[in-house]
Amino acid sequence: MINPFNDEYFMKKALQEAEMAFDKDEIPVGAIIVIDNKIIARSHNLTELLNDVTAHAEMQSITAAANFLGGKYLIGCTLYVTLEPCQMCAGALYWSQISKIVYGASDENRGFVKMGTKLHPKTTIVSGILADEAADLMKRFFAQKRK
Amino acid sequence: MINPFNDEYFMKKALQEAEMAFDKDEIPVGAIIVIDNKIIARSHNLTELLNDVTAHAEMQSITAAANFLGGKYLIGCTLYVTLEPCQMCAGALYWSQISKIVYGASDENRGFVKMGTKLHPKTTIVSGILADEAADLMKRFFAQKRK
Repeated sequence: MINPFNDEYFMKKALQEAEMAFDKDEIPVGAIIVIDNKIIARSHNLTELLNDVTAHAEMQSITAAANFLGGKYLIGCTLYVTLEPCQMCAGALYWSQISKIVYGASDENRGFVKMGTKLHPKTTIVSGILADEAADLMKRFFAQKRK
Repeated sequence: MINPFNDEYFMKKALQEAEMAFDKDEIPVGAIIVIDNKIIARSHNLTELLNDVTAHAEMQSITAAANFLGGKYLIGCTLYVTLEPCQMCAGALYWSQISKIVYGASDENRGFVKMGTKLHPKTTIVSGILADEAADLMKRFFAQKRK
């Protein structure tokens, strides 16, 4: 039997969230958190709408997932996010001890890899899942902004 | 005329916040944000009470100050925090473009200096203000926890 619940399946859900951010004129980044193939948090960037630099998609999903689980540690959880996390989000993920992070497009300027942010030693990372789709959405957003 | 509004004056207010965290059985870290000698945000660590790793004192003050100002950038603001910010909080401060960060005790394990987190190039840093008081509060907290 084919398992439909692979990284691409869940990244598509995160991309849907990114599209919701796009429609709100927010930098289009979406995130979800999954445990045992169940989505327990969905969010998209809301920094403009909320006037708050901390309102990145990942931060909202971390808070929502902890709320769902009734505990602040996200052990056993996977974060799917369309763009590589920044220092702040990677720092929050470090504290959460999340088991796995899957991201789409790389952020070569402000992503945690370039910035050297440390993740929790127990966290595994997968990158490049539906990266083109995520990057295209970002490019469309900034092309539209320049008009 | 003596200006009463110096870094020690405001750090005392942040220490009062840290004591409120202590009384709630939270790791005792407090923060305030000041603009033009006016306190526009006060907060203390609430990670246990809120079950949320993102509920550090700094994060709450960043959100509150932006809300007060009606804009997400904290240009012209100073953050006073009793303990050196972590990666997450330094990452949020980076995005906020805050003008000045004043912290008390150093966090040699998980502070942003050791972790190598980048702050905004326009942000100036002052450290060691009432550091002993902040460190003593932390020591008392962990000594009590071990009992």
